Amino acid sequence: MSTAISPLAPTDVPDLPEIAGVRLATAAAGIRYKGRTDVLLALLDEGTTVAGVFTRSRCPSAPVEWCRARLKDGHHAKAGLALVVNSGNANAFTGKTGRQATKLTAGIAAKAAGCKASDIYLASTGVIGEPLDATKFNGVLETLASEAAPDRWMDAARAIMTTDTFPKVATARVKLGKAAVTINGIAKGAGMIAPDMATMLSFIFTDAPITATALQSLLKSGVEDTFNAVTIDSDTSTSDTLLAFATGAAGARGAPRISRAGDPRLKAFVKAFHGVLADLAEQVARDGEGARKLVEVIVEGATSKASARKIAKSIANSPLVKTAIAGEDANWGRVVMAVGKAGEPADRDKLSIYFNGIRVAKSGARDPSYDEAEVSKAMKNDRIQIKTTLGLGKGRDRVLTCDLTKEYVAINGDYRS
Amino acid sequence: MSTAISPLAPTDVPDLPEIAGVRLATAAAGIRYKGRTDVLLALLDEGTTVAGVFTRSRCPSAPVEWCRARLKDGHHAKAGLALVVNSGNANAFTGKTGRQATKLTAGIAAKAAGCKASDIYLASTGVIGEPLDATKFNGVLETLASEAAPDRWMDAARAIMTTDTFPKVATARVKLGKAAVTINGIAKGAGMIAPDMATMLSFIFTDAPITATALQSLLKSGVEDTFNAVTIDSDTSTSDTLLAFATGAAGARGAPRISRAGDPRLKAFVKAFHGVLADLAEQVARDGEGARKLVEVIVEGATSKASARKIAKSIANSPLVKTAIAGEDANWGRVVMAVGKAGEPADRDKLSIYFNGIRVAKSGARDPSYDEAEVSKAMKNDRIQIKTTLGLGKGRDRVLTCDLTKEYVAINGDYRS
Repeated sequence: MSTAISPLAPTDVPDLPEIAGVRLATAAAGIRYKGRTDVLLALLDEGTTVAGVFTRSRCPSAPVEWCRARLKDGHHAKAGLALVVNSGNANAFTGKTGRQATKLTAGIAAKAAGCKASDIYLASTGVIGEPLDATKFNGVLETLASEAAPDRWMDAARAIMTTDTFPKVATARVKLGKAAVTINGIAKGAGMIAPDMATMLSFIFTDAPITATALQSLLKSGVEDTFNAVTIDSDTSTSDTLLAFATGAAGARGAPRISRAGDPRLKAFVKAFHGVLADLAEQVARDGEGARKLVEVIVEGATSKASARKIAKSIANSPLVKTAIAGEDANWGRVVMAVGKAGEPADRDKLSIYFNGIRVAKSGARDPSYDEAEVSKAMKNDRIQIKTTLGLGKGRDRVLTCDLTKEYVAINGDYRS
Repeated sequence: MSTAISPLAPTDVPDLPEIAGVRLATAAAGIRYKGRTDVLLALLDEGTTVAGVFTRSRCPSAPVEWCRARLKDGHHAKAGLALVVNSGNANAFTGKTGRQATKLTAGIAAKAAGCKASDIYLASTGVIGEPLDATKFNGVLETLASEAAPDRWMDAARAIMTTDTFPKVATARVKLGKAAVTINGIAKGAGMIAPDMATMLSFIFTDAPITATALQSLLKSGVEDTFNAVTIDSDTSTSDTLLAFATGAAGARGAPRISRAGDPRLKAFVKAFHGVLADLAEQVARDGEGARKLVEVIVEGATSKASARKIAKSIANSPLVKTAIAGEDANWGRVVMAVGKAGEPADRDKLSIYFNGIRVAKSGARDPSYDEAEVSKAMKNDRIQIKTTLGLGKGRDRVLTCDLTKEYVAINGDYRS
């Protein structure tokens, strides 16, 4: 497993400000790793609302099932609530034992945080199929609850990493009514915990006063063009979890209470919220296993946005396209192949393809005027944009991915034992 | 590009017998390669019927469009007909020039073979997006027509190779009525012509007297569990072509003329025909780029065969599963992931998973009784069977693939220029 930081890691890492109503603490509980933190406890004050979106896998992990049950009808904690995240063991495909482990963890956390077990949210990432020994949280969570502080954002981002090569954080500050509100987010990416599961976890926190229903709606529309538009290897984790918590603390400073996602007063907030999600999602792509290039796939002129998405995903998930990018080859033939196999309306003779703005194919054939040397130079960039125009309609979409390198195979092909 | 023969190549290569009504010849036309043959001409006698199935790509190559037009309503050549296959250039995504090239090639071939241009079948494999200079066939096809002989099967299989590491042939002999009939097949596999397109081409020949309609129906049902059940990297070529030719010459020896695929007299023939397709399809999987292991994915207990197929393909196409196999890791967690993402009915807690017959997971959790050492040993085989039982119904399916190795990335990530 490579431990070098991804060459695509962001160079500017923001300081995350405190958010009233959120306290964080991390510890090394020895779930699987040695010499690093692997548990995050986030304590959220009374009145916090919660929203969540999860993996579409038909075989979800026990913590995903736990959170889904909590979120039914939108959560609004009367007392405080807490989030417990562990890395090292995903508690996925662990059967009855897995359900017992979530229950036990929630019980320990509830006692530590002074709330009900049904006010505990759980996420786990790491090896799957191994029973999670939840008794390891005994004592640890109590200590964390007593130590929790509002300024531990980088620690939090680090504790949830598996084979991520850098912690992923994003922040935004925006006006809601006349009050400034803050949005902080942390994520872990498609780093893989040898030898198991790529899992995306992300947690968003804000002090804006937003009802659970409005927050859920905001989150659902927000993921569509951010996390759902990122693909590393087409594989879907059993554990993908994105939770948003709104403490509402900014209400005391005059921020209006928002109960509809469409509320016009929320406009700037929505933009900032999407910005945080987009930032974190891009960081996930930048930390794709073995990634050396960030790849932005744009499809225009499709019959609909949904059709453009399907074609863009077909391009972004094609091993042939991804290996070509790794080889710095502007191989538009493989892009044509990926468009063709998507099964969506496409007219070969209307297709044009651009690499980093240079048109290499038009009207269903090689663009006779393109300069091979210029394209070759462009392909050396660590950010590659593949744009395909279909010439059929106004459908447009954008998907992020990374290249497919020998390192990906090495990371994922290592012996388990 | 690796030139070593795949370690999975068959050790027993059959001698293909002559088939009355079929003559073959090959030449080096210098389409792209140097020092090897790259054109195959097959001459088929008067009365030959033809059937074909093609790529589902929305961006098919010019030769695919050409053949589709010929096959409308099923072809029955009054005079003879001919098949021209070239390797080195796929004549795909070549726009108007591509259509002109097919027309020109067919014209040259028709003159050489003494039939009409509409009785010429074409297939091309190789680099895409480059214009095919069909004038190179001038003279060459005339010479081939004069040299064509009934015993050139291995030459034919070699001339259509791109980065295939071995020629792929199969044969069967079976009774039709009281006459013995022969089925010969050749194929080229998912070898990739650097830097472009994985293309599967296969051509089946028989002397059985079968109408075009019956042959088409036979071919269509035959591919379902053979070529359509093989996946190397989930990518679909613009050029996949499978053509079957029945000369009917065995009619003179008393074989009955068959006009319905369901004719009971055809039973043994159908079995042999499927056997030839299955044999060639498996050879394609055995020659997957960089393949070191042949992987058989079996799904049982699904709600239907179609559902089992979708789940089996999800497993077979998962980069995480394929890299695990390359690493000789019985990583059933990734199999669970692939089952979960298929979107088909599955109940995590009813899943069982077997590697080469050893159950490693049952009832949604690790099988506590499995012996890690035994499984590790089994994973060293060059043939790996992954069986998943869903426990929901009677749907069963089987898909063949290969592992995903660093060599795959190396082969496909090479610089184009």
